[in-house]
Amino acid sequence: MTPKRFAKLKQALTRRQPDLTVLADGVHKPHNISAILRTCDAVGIHRLHAVSPDGAIRRHHMMAGGSKRWVEVVTHPSVDAAATSMRAEGWQLAAAHAEQGSRDYRDIDYTEHIAVILGAELYGPSERALEHADFSIRIPMHGLVESLNVSVAAAVILFEAERQRRAAGLYDRSRLDPDEFEQTLFEWAYPDIARRCRARDLPYPPLADDGALLGNPLAGGV
Amino acid sequence: MTPKRFAKLKQALTRRQPDLTVLADGVHKPHNISAILRTCDAVGIHRLHAVSPDGAIRRHHMMAGGSKRWVEVVTHPSVDAAATSMRAEGWQLAAAHAEQGSRDYRDIDYTEHIAVILGAELYGPSERALEHADFSIRIPMHGLVESLNVSVAAAVILFEAERQRRAAGLYDRSRLDPDEFEQTLFEWAYPDIARRCRARDLPYPPLADDGALLGNPLAGGV
Repeated sequence: MTPKRFAKLKQALTRRQPDLTVLADGVHKPHNISAILRTCDAVGIHRLHAVSPDGAIRRHHMMAGGSKRWVEVVTHPSVDAAATSMRAEGWQLAAAHAEQGSRDYRDIDYTEHIAVILGAELYGPSERALEHADFSIRIPMHGLVESLNVSVAAAVILFEAERQRRAAGLYDRSRLDPDEFEQTLFEWAYPDIARRCRARDLPYPPLADDGALLGNPLAGGV
Repeated sequence: MTPKRFAKLKQALTRRQPDLTVLADGVHKPHNISAILRTCDAVGIHRLHAVSPDGAIRRHHMMAGGSKRWVEVVTHPSVDAAATSMRAEGWQLAAAHAEQGSRDYRDIDYTEHIAVILGAELYGPSERALEHADFSIRIPMHGLVESLNVSVAAAVILFEAERQRRAAGLYDRSRLDPDEFEQTLFEWAYPDIARRCRARDLPYPPLADDGALLGNPLAGGV
């Protein structure tokens, strides 16, 4: 871990937006999941939520290396379970779905605690997901195709959220809980040591300002 | 061809933006090409340009049904050929590429005659394409991944163009040459008859206001 790399991890974590997320409901194709995870990372989403009865999205996420490990994936066994759990955490649920009464995606306030529900395609969140949504949002379509690719729709909406959040200064200082910040920073910087500490129920060792390890609880016993 | 369907074709054609396009330089994956074509249709791009030495993108385009037939694909044998031909048509070339001096994608005027060069990934237009570009544009990245999926990057930029063009009233009345408008409308409404007319070098028959055929040059001889 070079000091430069450590500074980069710290900066990205400082820009994480704990009150913005996506709930993927029925997004199955690995290339769409990958594209959505990359977009989430780019706009600072800390955790993506997914309805994944068989846990497939999580396996894909665990297996995929590189970019995907920066965005945590929380899976839910059903859309009902997802909605119940996310409501309890205070999320507004906005479904990306063009229908009578849906609002232009640029007319939404994304500086609030908000999750965007994505279906298998833009017009495809499940009926059940739409029942749980507070409102639906649409992207203007001037042509003849009826929907965008789901990772495209996600990006168009999330970069509008990014625009609003940047204007509101929400990327300027850390918005994560300080304990979560320190814990995640350690896990990003030293994933192997973090895993072994967790397996043995040991606390993570402290880090110097430049990211150097100050002590190693695993020393001698590994 | 129902009058309702004909009105829909006409409306989409009325919103086409002949002075906005994409130059795809090395975009190979069919799912990315499909996603980009759908986005182009949605923002009113009439023709997509692609560097495709072996014509693969065109075959994909021809074979793919549905949405893809609404956006014409112009292929070029090399990036040099593409740049020469597009310059002669008055296109500015903006490369989607984060580098020293690249401009935030929201600081660009997309109401001008502008083509966005896309590489195999956001940071991937070829060296040669970058030499031809007038300037480069970047999308802000707050996380740790270094690039977005190419169809995602295309959409983020093109929906900013859509925002600017909508604000400037560029979707409010037809901007195509009237002859091209009539010809394309016929081809969209009656693709089979159009194909057979072209094969026999016959003019397209006129259409009534509701889209009904007024005469059929192929009658009796087919």
